[in-house]
Amino acid sequence: MNKADLLPAARGDVPADLLLANARVINVFNGCIETGNVAVYRGMIAGVGEYTKALETIDLEGRYLAPGFIDGHVHLESSMLDVVEYARAVVPRGTLTIVTDLHEIANVTGLAGIRYIMNRAQHLPLNVFLMAPTCVPATHLETSGAEIDADDIRQMLKWSNCTGLGEMMNYPGVLNRDEKVTAKLRLAMGRPVDGHAPGLTGKDLTAYIAAGIRSDHESVSLAEAREKLDKGMFIMIREGSTEKNLEALLPLVDEANCRRCMLVVDDRSCVELQRDGDIDAVLRKAIRLGLDPVRAIRMVTLNPAEYFHLQEHGAVAPGYQADMVVLEDLNCPQAVMTFSRGKLAARDGRPVFKTGRQASAKLRDTIHIKEPGRDSFRLSCAMPMPVIEVVPGQIITRYRRETLPVVEGTAVPDPARDILKIVVVERHRASGNTGVGMVAGFGLQRGAIASSVAHDAHNIVAVGVDDESIGAAVAEIQRMKGGLVAVDGKMVLAALPLPVAGLLSGQSLEKTADALTVVEKVAARLGSTLPAPFATLSFMALPVIPELKITDLGLVDVNEFRIIP
Amino acid sequence: MNKADLLPAARGDVPADLLLANARVINVFNGCIETGNVAVYRGMIAGVGEYTKALETIDLEGRYLAPGFIDGHVHLESSMLDVVEYARAVVPRGTLTIVTDLHEIANVTGLAGIRYIMNRAQHLPLNVFLMAPTCVPATHLETSGAEIDADDIRQMLKWSNCTGLGEMMNYPGVLNRDEKVTAKLRLAMGRPVDGHAPGLTGKDLTAYIAAGIRSDHESVSLAEAREKLDKGMFIMIREGSTEKNLEALLPLVDEANCRRCMLVVDDRSCVELQRDGDIDAVLRKAIRLGLDPVRAIRMVTLNPAEYFHLQEHGAVAPGYQADMVVLEDLNCPQAVMTFSRGKLAARDGRPVFKTGRQASAKLRDTIHIKEPGRDSFRLSCAMPMPVIEVVPGQIITRYRRETLPVVEGTAVPDPARDILKIVVVERHRASGNTGVGMVAGFGLQRGAIASSVAHDAHNIVAVGVDDESIGAAVAEIQRMKGGLVAVDGKMVLAALPLPVAGLLSGQSLEKTADALTVVEKVAARLGSTLPAPFATLSFMALPVIPELKITDLGLVDVNEFRIIP
Repeated sequence: MNKADLLPAARGDVPADLLLANARVINVFNGCIETGNVAVYRGMIAGVGEYTKALETIDLEGRYLAPGFIDGHVHLESSMLDVVEYARAVVPRGTLTIVTDLHEIANVTGLAGIRYIMNRAQHLPLNVFLMAPTCVPATHLETSGAEIDADDIRQMLKWSNCTGLGEMMNYPGVLNRDEKVTAKLRLAMGRPVDGHAPGLTGKDLTAYIAAGIRSDHESVSLAEAREKLDKGMFIMIREGSTEKNLEALLPLVDEANCRRCMLVVDDRSCVELQRDGDIDAVLRKAIRLGLDPVRAIRMVTLNPAEYFHLQEHGAVAPGYQADMVVLEDLNCPQAVMTFSRGKLAARDGRPVFKTGRQASAKLRDTIHIKEPGRDSFRLSCAMPMPVIEVVPGQIITRYRRETLPVVEGTAVPDPARDILKIVVVERHRASGNTGVGMVAGFGLQRGAIASSVAHDAHNIVAVGVDDESIGAAVAEIQRMKGGLVAVDGKMVLAALPLPVAGLLSGQSLEKTADALTVVEKVAARLGSTLPAPFATLSFMALPVIPELKITDLGLVDVNEFRIIP
Repeated sequence: MNKADLLPAARGDVPADLLLANARVINVFNGCIETGNVAVYRGMIAGVGEYTKALETIDLEGRYLAPGFIDGHVHLESSMLDVVEYARAVVPRGTLTIVTDLHEIANVTGLAGIRYIMNRAQHLPLNVFLMAPTCVPATHLETSGAEIDADDIRQMLKWSNCTGLGEMMNYPGVLNRDEKVTAKLRLAMGRPVDGHAPGLTGKDLTAYIAAGIRSDHESVSLAEAREKLDKGMFIMIREGSTEKNLEALLPLVDEANCRRCMLVVDDRSCVELQRDGDIDAVLRKAIRLGLDPVRAIRMVTLNPAEYFHLQEHGAVAPGYQADMVVLEDLNCPQAVMTFSRGKLAARDGRPVFKTGRQASAKLRDTIHIKEPGRDSFRLSCAMPMPVIEVVPGQIITRYRRETLPVVEGTAVPDPARDILKIVVVERHRASGNTGVGMVAGFGLQRGAIASSVAHDAHNIVAVGVDDESIGAAVAEIQRMKGGLVAVDGKMVLAALPLPVAGLLSGQSLEKTADALTVVEKVAARLGSTLPAPFATLSFMALPVIPELKITDLGLVDVNEFRIIP
């Protein structure tokens, strides 16, 4: 809208569209709580104070009113939800703005997937800002479905809802001044550039920051986060489904530096979104851990708004977009109502908005595999052989060596010692590329589980006790055109289809979360000892996280950043 | 430079160009002071820490090192200095970045004057960022030399060193949604828009902010500043030559809101710059008044950098421009050395940089007046007549009515009661427009003083005891093509020529300040009782400041915003 249109309502000359009366407003500018009436006009906040005339009035009866929460770093594909369903999941929780790096779908479909999600996000009561993915594919040690080059990034940066450059995971490329990486960074031109620098320290960290990278969400220790903050990075404290850093990093935050800190989720599963919540769950935990509630709210409103230059977001103040959350108890913030652009979007945790969006037929044919042969999953290898060891609750793995039974000249799993076969099948271009190895820690005693969600190239990854089960699991994913599956021999026991790019469900939040719960339970029945076996599985093929990983090109020694021959 | 070039120095692989060793660095991110070595490479900060190799090393022996100060709001023309000399005045004080609204010269020469200053500012050790002037002319109640329209603003916003829209003084235009004003505001598009809202309060203030205006530097009382901050404005606490608000506003600043506050000078005369200093003087005074020194430094570094989106300014950190100030005593910060883009620019208060700039012959013919006739300054008026009353130390005036002696049918001054004649002669287009009135408070007993610096239209303004002196003063300004003058009868007693646009000296800082001191002393000898009579004189023609002012069109009742017939 033309802001001038807002002025008569701000002056009280015309009635507001909506009046939120008797609010205790969280003022993020001064850190105080102020009682007043909030006048909303054409989706914007006209003013806070003694307004009375309005077409509609809601008496908040002294409840707290906070700016809509901003999640400053999330890959929404990790929810396995279409963005419409994602909005249904998070808007009732108070998240009204997300800044998303869509590098998951970009690895499968390139710009087309990014456009698909950004287009579907229009007209939702959720502001979706894009950080243009910089590292697609993440490495040369795997086969992705697409590449994002400097030209693509230049194009995205022209979009009005593209705020900057997404996490620069290729820190070796930055430090070694790789030409392609440098070209991408040069495009940023004063816009925010997100970092991804797990464990980077000392002069390498300094150099990475000197390249213009000004945020990081990968710190796991207090010392790591402190060094990054001291050197000028905004610290995004992450509390996702698999990576939980809040407890370790919260002691970092003090009055002097809190303007440089945010709370983000990075990756959250649909089950967790539905059960525990989104940014609101992080807020509650942070407050439980001792963070002052108003400071916590500033960290998910004004702070990300400033970092991302979102001038009309992050405050309940004149001229800001009317995205607001009503909270009952500031010590345990739970959204009672959320308003998006001045319209009630959710009440008591349930969405009340119409999405007006049909399921799309696009991007539903992205699984292309070459029929595996009889011997595709055979593993003949000198003993002892490398074994990936899962570290519970983390996405790093350990590099172990084990001697395994050999049957007909091929190494076979040993479920008794919890060593299973792991397979990655290239699924973008039907190349037939197949990585085969062994993994410890999944606990399966029968059958196999498989997934087309496998960071970041999203090939098909399967873990199983025998080749027949693995083959059946891969075949079922092919049949579903993507998804998660648990099989026993030839029998499919449970599945969650993810037909959109092999990453996203075509179903509702509720159905998707239910199906994920079921397939995880079935995996547990097969013997899985992991709390979230598919989430763990999805990180087995991510060769930017140490120590031993597997891609369609084979086992990757991450520390040496090479394929093991 | 390409930031990638900085990385080898950041990693310590190549020697730095300059090493500032044993510095106590003010870290604006965490509010702490950290000991370390600062490595500079190609004008940028490569890193802070254990660097040792460098082409040149300066041992700071434990002295403090702060980011170069940023003055977030200044009209540099008020110094009467060419920007080259302005840099010589402020860089030794630690000011290494200014954000300037050049609406003074724009009122005389339009875009040409703005271009003139911005071009001359290149290659100086001072970063000059422009806020495009929005209110030229300031009102329709005076005749300016030029107009800045929306097209001009659109053009300026394309310049890489134009950061946003300058102070929107026309708040009635904003509130009444004047079409031209609205068109200008629409151009801002997410960039900062500075406000100017003296005394605006309540819903009018809310509406003004809702229009997208996010800063103000006109608060004079604590309550006024607090309301503006609470509603979302960045508060620029002003401590200029004529407007001093620091003492009144400093109690506003606390730990929670200080990120929304800055210190600025707005207008500072060359004499004050030379004698007391610039932002450094404001810092010293603020600290003397009780502000924590590190917090004070954040208010003139990180805070303005964030507000203006100056991503490479405001911190001593990797990837930032190497603009730094060495301070001896943090409780009384005085620049011992200043470095601009990694080069020593000043030492012990003296500039050591070459300006490489010749005086320019441009814009030196801007005084065009129609020869005053015999009766031009005659005043025939019914008694009692309106008299402008100067309020010492303020730029507002009072509206008084007095009965004056009448000689040959015309009202004449009454020096015994300190009521003098004031005249404004249009000087851009030789229209012959002349405003004549009476003023109380200058104290002259003989002669006249006159100036071509008269905010904002910069016509010639003169105050005197008799028409002959006034005529001689105006004629001398015409002869000098601009300047300040004190005359007695036909005799010119002292003058400061300001040949560039009638606003700026062609001389050095030292000569200009000396000449200004002399002409002020002479004015005192003529009887002036004001500490800075020419500064006071320059605000007599500013019809946006209450209550009674005078322009070339006549006396202006500012409260009614109209010419008195």
